[in-house]
Formats: sequence, C-alpha cells, structure tokens
Amino acid sequence: MRQGVLHVIMAGGSGTRFWPVSRSRRPKQFLALVGERSLLRQAFDRAAAMSGEQNVYVASGAAQRDMVMQALPGFDPRRLIVEPIARNTAPCVGLAALRLLRVDQEAVMVVWPADHVYTNQEALRQAIELAVAAADSGPALVTLGITPSRPETGYGYIEVQDGAAAGPGARRAARFVEKPDLATAREYVASGRFLWNSGVFAWKVGSILRQIETCAPGLWSGLQTIAAAMGQPAEERIISETFASLPSISIDHAVMEKTQEVLVVPVDPGWSDVGSWDAAADLHATDAAGNAFAGDPGAVDQVVLVGSRDCFVYASGDPGRPIALVGVEDLIVVDAGDALLVCRRGDSQSVRAVVEALKVRGRNDVL
Amino acid sequence: MRQGVLHVIMAGGSGTRFWPVSRSRRPKQFLALVGERSLLRQAFDRAAAMSGEQNVYVASGAAQRDMVMQALPGFDPRRLIVEPIARNTAPCVGLAALRLLRVDQEAVMVVWPADHVYTNQEALRQAIELAVAAADSGPALVTLGITPSRPETGYGYIEVQDGAAAGPGARRAARFVEKPDLATAREYVASGRFLWNSGVFAWKVGSILRQIETCAPGLWSGLQTIAAAMGQPAEERIISETFASLPSISIDHAVMEKTQEVLVVPVDPGWSDVGSWDAAADLHATDAAGNAFAGDPGAVDQVVLVGSRDCFVYASGDPGRPIALVGVEDLIVVDAGDALLVCRRGDSQSVRAVVEALKVRGRNDVL
Repeated sequence: MRQGVLHVIMAGGSGTRFWPVSRSRRPKQFLALVGERSLLRQAFDRAAAMSGEQNVYVASGAAQRDMVMQALPGFDPRRLIVEPIARNTAPCVGLAALRLLRVDQEAVMVVWPADHVYTNQEALRQAIELAVAAADSGPALVTLGITPSRPETGYGYIEVQDGAAAGPGARRAARFVEKPDLATAREYVASGRFLWNSGVFAWKVGSILRQIETCAPGLWSGLQTIAAAMGQPAEERIISETFASLPSISIDHAVMEKTQEVLVVPVDPGWSDVGSWDAAADLHATDAAGNAFAGDPGAVDQVVLVGSRDCFVYASGDPGRPIALVGVEDLIVVDAGDALLVCRRGDSQSVRAVVEALKVRGRNDVL
Repeated sequence: MRQGVLHVIMAGGSGTRFWPVSRSRRPKQFLALVGERSLLRQAFDRAAAMSGEQNVYVASGAAQRDMVMQALPGFDPRRLIVEPIARNTAPCVGLAALRLLRVDQEAVMVVWPADHVYTNQEALRQAIELAVAAADSGPALVTLGITPSRPETGYGYIEVQDGAAAGPGARRAARFVEKPDLATAREYVASGRFLWNSGVFAWKVGSILRQIETCAPGLWSGLQTIAAAMGQPAEERIISETFASLPSISIDHAVMEKTQEVLVVPVDPGWSDVGSWDAAADLHATDAAGNAFAGDPGAVDQVVLVGSRDCFVYASGDPGRPIALVGVEDLIVVDAGDALLVCRRGDSQSVRAVVEALKVRGRNDVL
C-alpha cells in the first residue's frame, strides 16, 4: 500500500440483532461472531496489514471507549476518535477528517465499517489499492461496490454509468438506490450495472471536506466550529456541544447520493455485513452433518449433537455448561449465559420481536 | 377406604431419561415434571388422601433419604423404609412387607410407583377400593390393569382370563407379557383381553410373603435373616449385609409372573408412567398455539415465544434467565441451569445418547 493512507474504522454502531449475545452496551462489532477475533479486531488487523498499525484510527462512542481498548490491546488511545454522542456516520466522517487533516493534509482516508467480514482478503486488498489510487489522483469520493451474488433486498445498491472506466478498476457512479423490492433487485442483478453499497470509502481528506461543504452545509458549519476548537483548552467541551447539535445523518444520505464525484471500484471480496444470526451462521464452515459452531471455545466444546443437522450453535455461556441438540434441524441456538435463544434458521429477523417483548417486561438488564 | 390399609410408595428409582433436569442424584420422582408438586409428593398426597398420612410409607435408597424428607415436609422418618442398596423392586417389596407385618399383621398393603401420574383420581380411588377388597378377601395378589388406549410398545401387558369375574371389579390374570412389538401390541389392544401393567399392587402382607416363599426362595431366605434381625441391636448392619446379597429382580419377574394367584382390576385412570420428555410434554395443557410450560414459575415467567407453536419448555435454571423461541415448532426445550436440551418432539428417547456422550467426556458432574 502506498504511503499517506490513513484508515478510520467506524466502531460506533449499536443494535440488538444479535441478541442475546449483543446487548445495548456490547454491540456486534465487539463480538467474535465469525472467527475467533471480534469483528472490530478483524477490521483493525485488516487495515493494519495494509498500512501499518500506526496509520489505523478507530472512531467510536465515548461509552464504548473501554470496550475498544479491551478489543485492541496495545492500541494507542491517541488514535481513538471519540464521538461525544451518536450522530450516524456523516458527523463521524467529518470529525475523523478534521482529525486526520492535522496528521497529514494530503492523506487518503479509507473508511471502514467495524462489523463487516470479507472472506477474500487479497481481492479486498487489490480493490483498496485501486480505490486509494483513484482517490489520490483527483477530487473523487471512491467507494467499493460489491458484485451482487443474489437479488438481496436488504442492501442498498449503486448503479454505475455505462461507458469507459473512470480510471484503473474504477467506474463512475450513476446513482445510489435504497433497499429495493425483490423484483427490482432481480432486475438490478440481471442488468450487471448494479453493485452493493459496501460502506467502504476512500478519499483525500480535502475531498470529503469539500464535498461536505457543498452537499451538507449544516454539518459543514458545525465542523468549522469543531476545527477551530481543536488544540484549544475548551476543545473537549466545544466538540461535545457542537457534535450534539449536528444532524444525525449517514454519509450516504448527506454526501454520496448528492454529489457527482463518486467513483466505484467493483469487487467480489466475499463480503457480508453480518446483518443477522442467519448471516453469521451462513459464514461458518460446517461439519459433515451441516452443523456449525461459534462462541467461546470452552463452551463450544460442551455441545453434544445427536441426530441433528444444519444447526448453528453459538455458545458463550458458562464454559462447562452442556448444550445438547437431539433430532433437530435448521436451528440457531445461542447460549449467552444469562439468556438463551432457539430460532428457526431463516427467521432471525424476528429476534427483534424478542427484544421488544423483553423491553415491555422491563428486562433492560438483558438487553 | 377401609381400615388396615397401609401404602408403600417405592421411591428408589433412578435414571437419566429426564436429563438435564433429572440426574443420577436427583431422579425423576423428585421432579415436578407434571404440575407444581414433585411426582413423589403427588404420590404421597394421593395415598394420604385415601388412607391418612399416618398409613403411608415411603421406600427409598439410603442416599435419597434427605431428598425424600425434603420432598415431604413433616413426614415421620420412622415411616421411611430404607433400601441399603438398590436391588430392584422384589427385595424392596419384601423388606416393606416385613416392616408392615410388625405394624399390622392383617394389613392390606398397597404398593405404588412414586413416579407415575393419574389424571382421573376418582377412577383410581374406586379401583384401589376394589383391589383392596379383593386382596383382603383371599390370598390373591391384586394389580391394577390399565385399559390400553393405544398399541403402546413401551409397556408390559397383562392378559386376563376369559370367563366370570373373580370378584367385584376383578378378573383373574392369565399371564404377564413383556413389551410387545407393534403388531403384537395392536392384536392385544384389539382383543380387549390385555391391560397395561401399572405397577400398582394390593395384597395382604401375609399373602405377598407366602408368594415370595413359594416363588422366590432365594429372596425368602434373605428376608428371614432380615426378619430375625429386626428390633435387634445389630439390625442395621445385618439388613445392610443381607440386602446386598439379595438378587436384584423386579417383583413382576420374581413373583407376579410365576404365581396363579393374580387378580387384575381393570381401570382407566388417565395413567402415565411419564417415561420420557415426550410423555411429560403430552401431559400438559397447552395455550392457543399448542405451547406448554413447566418448571420453576420464576424461570417459566421469562420464556418469550415469537411465532412458535407446539413447543414444550421446561425452565428450572436461573429465575431471571430469558429463554426465547423464535419461529420454531415441535420442540422440547429444557433449561436446567447448568445444562440445556433442545429436542425434537417424538425424539426424546434419544436423550440417553446425550447422557452416554457426556459420560464418555467424563462429565459426571452434569449426569
């Protein structure tokens, strides 16, 4: 990877789609949903392998600071970008750009979600190289576009323009579209002109700030206040107050969908946004009976399966607690120690209904 | 119920068919598998309602003494008949008969398994009245025969002789048969001459001892040694030593199948031997979606079902631990706190395979 690349991993997300393992205070990126390392740790190691650990920054909420430091032993807290309050990705990207501007005005900034996985690291690395080169050579905001493998209705799509490439490996984006219905998604995939919106971006620090200025003047105004306060005694207070006043909006809505300066690097890096227990289950290698296991090794060791197939067991409860499955199939079984989920595969979107039911019962202690 | 009836509840059974709730040290009769009281407590209360608590004895292993006393608060330990070592039901019946002989030589003794349930108490009470009357009027060994409702292959059957009744409500038994195959079971049920062997007996104390003398001379010889020691200083030691030398055999094999003196009282008291999680599940009233719940009320309260039906959840783990079922059907889910079972309904016989697997892993702590 060339010099002058700074990575920002956005680790501020929250959510309970992975209840009972994920909680409001312990969201998905801190969990080892796939593999033995947390998703955040995997994201950090991935970026560090490309550009060196000293060039990887992590953005997260103030409340998650301790969890970030725990997930990344040895991480220099000066490279932690603290969002004083959750305001979606646009303010986070703006704050991070201001921070990196003080490190290297000419830097190309690569922005990563902390909670996605990629099974083909080499394809990903090559795409990032192309995206960085495209970002470095002009004012473009560059994004990775994932070659769709199915008519997924849970993702946003990016349509690329017909015609010549906009540079090595890059295409000019025509438009961003929200999650489509199934018929539309089928058309998209059949057309060959649509890619999944990965949420991975590369741009020069100056490029993204200029686009924020143009596309999101309210955000830009707040960022100017923050920029003026940086390095001043009242920095922390002013950033907190200003950040709270910023619009809560995604970088896609605030900028990417509004500017003409978007390039897309198409790639098929075996990407998943790990959006549900079903998605997590599908990412695991199975045994001969189609069963897969994840969680804490000591707990996984005590799983006993009798005549069961195509099940996914996530065990992170007491290490010695046996979990026995007898004669069942197509189940997701999650033991979080203080709560238990038994879910039909394909039905894990309904976990939100469990969370709602527990809220109604006042069980915030397990949410 | 007439005077002179003494009940003996045989509570010495062991087994792990109800793993993970039942354990080698906490067998089925001590569990509230059906209803809020343990099966032993239900058996005791049932007999006490017929003849008064002071006429109900409990036989169990020495190791289970504390659990019996805990299950039956206020029970006079002098009515506990301790089996020094597990030797199946024939030695237990013999020992109990010797004990009751010292209480009332003319008593009719009613012997009950501790771990069966009856949904029709009145039908049961009437049948016991008839059995006691038949036992009291002669030398017969009387047993309850359950009118079969299906060609069950998991039970033993008793064939009754054709011809006249042997007394009010009683038929003479022709033979005992072991668990039949399905074709044979169908013939049995169609014939109308076969009843399920309930394991509930009534006989005069003298009658059963005479039959043991005739049919089981080895057992009889040991019982004579025990009888001679009763009330002597060395009683406990001699009973222990002698009991250990007795043949381990059921009262059916040792006596009932060998003598011609068996009468049967046919009855349909809604009987179940609660032989598996499936049997236990079937005994519970269901909600509109076919779901049923059992266990500790505090734990059951934290079960959350979303789009699930025909499931049976037995919760006896931490009272605050939520158990969520999402989009599943026909499952038996058992949370015992330190172990968890998820089993397809109809497959609970395979729980034994889980127990075997855990034995191989050296997990006797959860067996």
